[in-house]
Amino acid sequence: MTDDMLVLRPIARVSSVLTDRSTAPRQGDEGAPDAWIEVDPAVADGIRDLRVGEDVIVLTWLDRTRRDVLLVHPRGRRDRPPVGVFSSRSPDRPNPIGLHQVTILAIDGLRLHVSNLEALDGTPVIDIKPLLGPISER
Amino acid sequence: MTDDMLVLRPIARVSSVLTDRSTAPRQGDEGAPDAWIEVDPAVADGIRDLRVGEDVIVLTWLDRTRRDVLLVHPRGRRDRPPVGVFSSRSPDRPNPIGLHQVTILAIDGLRLHVSNLEALDGTPVIDIKPLLGPISER
Repeated sequence: MTDDMLVLRPIARVSSVLTDRSTAPRQGDEGAPDAWIEVDPAVADGIRDLRVGEDVIVLTWLDRTRRDVLLVHPRGRRDRPPVGVFSSRSPDRPNPIGLHQVTILAIDGLRLHVSNLEALDGTPVIDIKPLLGPISER
Repeated sequence: MTDDMLVLRPIARVSSVLTDRSTAPRQGDEGAPDAWIEVDPAVADGIRDLRVGEDVIVLTWLDRTRRDVLLVHPRGRRDRPPVGVFSSRSPDRPNPIGLHQVTILAIDGLRLHVSNLEALDGTPVIDIKPLLGPISER
């Protein structure tokens, strides 16, 4: 199975005051700062219908993590027994994809200001998706 | 920005009765069938703490889609005006990552039986994550 080459292309980058994993919050709702998402001009059309006030899902590529990890201590606490990585939100995992729900606070051209993003400065963004509403409104 | 090589490694594959995109449901809660996720033995430790009855998020690589699309007609309906792809859950997008919330119905060794998965047979699975509960329970 591992012969495949599934290659992601960054569509944006995070610009944040967070630069150090050891001091970053573990999740967006645990005190993460607002941040900017700087969108690649090549995909400008893709963001044209995003609006201030909207909640969206942002997927990131957590590029300062370990991919060779299958068991993790919850919340990095060595006093807690290790669990399988797929029962954990640890950024250390075989495919280090971060999943973040944020609110769009402002839009300035190709820059999106968003709430509560725990990704570090420079982190590649690989997708933005709307939340799914009721079936009748899709 | 697009010079980076961010390479995903499949951790599992979907085994499903769905084989044709044109007849697949658009979302898991729109009549998608139960399916099996066949986990790569190389990451067996990672699933050891998953339990029947749990709701998890599954990320897939939607490998039968178009990546050169920035505007899409909602729900493929040509009578609806196109929207920017990042305001859409269309599988056609620059990085074709599918985001699915499923319930684990059964576990048989390295095979997970899950509810309502709209991914086609053979689709690579790239991550499994627990839902985030209240901060106090993390």
